[in-house]
Amino acid sequence: MPGVASPAEFAYTLDIPTRWKDNDVYGHVNNVEYYSYFDTVINTFLIREGGLDIHRGPVIGLCVESHCRYDGPISFPERVVAGLAVDRLGNSSVRYAVSLFRVDDGARVDDGARGAADPDGGAPTPAAEGWFVHVFVDRETRRPTPVPEGIRAALLRLAR
Amino acid sequence: MPGVASPAEFAYTLDIPTRWKDNDVYGHVNNVEYYSYFDTVINTFLIREGGLDIHRGPVIGLCVESHCRYDGPISFPERVVAGLAVDRLGNSSVRYAVSLFRVDDGARVDDGARGAADPDGGAPTPAAEGWFVHVFVDRETRRPTPVPEGIRAALLRLAR
Amino acid sequence: MPGVASPAEFAYTLDIPTRWKDNDVYGHVNNVEYYSYFDTVINTFLIREGGLDIHRGPVIGLCVESHCRYDGPISFPERVVAGLAVDRLGNSSVRYAVSLFRVDDGARVDDGARGAADPDGGAPTPAAEGWFVHVFVDRETRRPTPVPEGIRAALLRLAR
Amino acid sequence: MPGVASPAEFAYTLDIPTRWKDNDVYGHVNNVEYYSYFDTVINTFLIREGGLDIHRGPVIGLCVESHCRYDGPISFPERVVAGLAVDRLGNSSVRYAVSLFRVDDGARVDDGARGAADPDGGAPTPAAEGWFVHVFVDRETRRPTPVPEGIRAALLRLAR
Repeated sequence: MPGVASPAEFAYTLDIPTRWKDNDVYGHVNNVEYYSYFDTVINTFLIREGGLDIHRGPVIGLCVESHCRYDGPISFPERVVAGLAVDRLGNSSVRYAVSLFRVDDGARVDDGARGAADPDGGAPTPAAEGWFVHVFVDRETRRPTPVPEGIRAALLRLAR
Repeated sequence: MPGVASPAEFAYTLDIPTRWKDNDVYGHVNNVEYYSYFDTVINTFLIREGGLDIHRGPVIGLCVESHCRYDGPISFPERVVAGLAVDRLGNSSVRYAVSLFRVDDGARVDDGARGAADPDGGAPTPAAEGWFVHVFVDRETRRPTPVPEGIRAALLRLAR
Repeated sequence: MPGVASPAEFAYTLDIPTRWKDNDVYGHVNNVEYYSYFDTVINTFLIREGGLDIHRGPVIGLCVESHCRYDGPISFPERVVAGLAVDRLGNSSVRYAVSLFRVDDGARVDDGARGAADPDGGAPTPAAEGWFVHVFVDRETRRPTPVPEGIRAALLRLAR
Repeated sequence: MPGVASPAEFAYTLDIPTRWKDNDVYGHVNNVEYYSYFDTVINTFLIREGGLDIHRGPVIGLCVESHCRYDGPISFPERVVAGLAVDRLGNSSVRYAVSLFRVDDGARVDDGARGAADPDGGAPTPAAEGWFVHVFVDRETRRPTPVPEGIRAALLRLAR
């Protein structure tokens, strides 16, 4: 299906269990929380794979644009697998693609690994697809700065 | 400035004070919370002006797509004024435009009223601009349904 | 009514409008969010009245204990008035009392002012009553430190 | 150490990975989020082990009191293990004990199982200990009702 991602396209995945308070009054995870899942997979990757020091590092990543298309409901207490890829890597910015898959739809939980393709060829379709742009800036001046080398090397591994 | 909205373009505005927990580790309101402000101004409008009954009404609005461009930081304990407009109203869906203005930049707090133009002609520029698409669905079947009349009448007043 | 506070007992009050996402799947503000309201009135007071600099100040307040008793439901899009008092002020710690009143129950919105008693003598009863203990610590070492003078002076004005 | 729980005392445990937005401006998980972890382990247990239907069941659990003592910091991207026990089971109410352990302190991740004692005898000390009271009520009338049998049977297994 064109334009729909399968977990195998994402070189980094993260298991994100939902929480009680993610559900809103209509009984499903609120649209706002999807962006929290985006933030979580992105920063987990940057910290663990790229060496980002969110507490004291001289360079930090600020979100300048984000987008999400909601394709199906997610509800607590389900588990979500977030798949992360890089669509564009510039001098000081990066545009990530993030898709959210439901474990109940067959997504595999295997943090950090490439999302496994279903052996039957039937990969789950995402519950949501989005993108997110980080600009890396100096922590003090908040001016754009080149992506640090350790982070750049990690991000290059997510290119698709 | 083309493409940048002033509060006067929004027929509905809502005062949204920030909360301690909106700030993230970098000291500013987290990108995720901006969408919470969008959700809040939209649903406050639908409830108060359009008669939406979120607890028992037969029709509810589900978010199918959202987007935000972040133009400047907001920090607790600031106050935000959210401006709401309607960019497209279809049979069962509506696309809202939302801009967030900082009271510290001169935005006026006057819930429900058209955002007042600055008498000096210098309207504040938004800290963020986004859009958000609701599809109205039957609460039980979750299938698309025409926008209820009371809500449609209210939304028409927000067209720009 | 013994043990139940009225807004007039609180020397500092803050208007806190609820948000869409505060409501949980049962249709009322989730118990967790009440603590977010506590955090918000406390830190707003410390910043505005006590001169706390949450970004760069040498001393910060960490929560070491908190408690809430829920007496009645609150629902978005209601407004809450949070009343703040000080029950115990030690060398490096403070125990706050916080009560939440519903504007729909008659609470007055008048940020920063002593909650006005109802002229008819019928003050609203709180929707929730809680307490919260801050220990002030050195930002770097996170070791307890005396309450800074500006903050101490402000807190003394909240004693009841 | 008297009064401090080890994971082995809890008949139900749940792995809760932290999220980016859990961290506050001081770099650690905000005190409010701890209650979100409480809510999550409690409701996951009630749904999976007790058959609670949060969407359509005739009986729901409402929080009437909660408390937390914070003993040490937790920071994203750490993982937390939440241990759940029952301290008092009445006709229509239950008082839970919840402790949060850091995986970085040696807590084991094994959802649903009794928290494993460290073979060396050195169980991790909790980062936080709290309690939480649910009253079960009729979904429509919100009046107290006896704890449903399936839930009661499950809760009895958590008594300590």
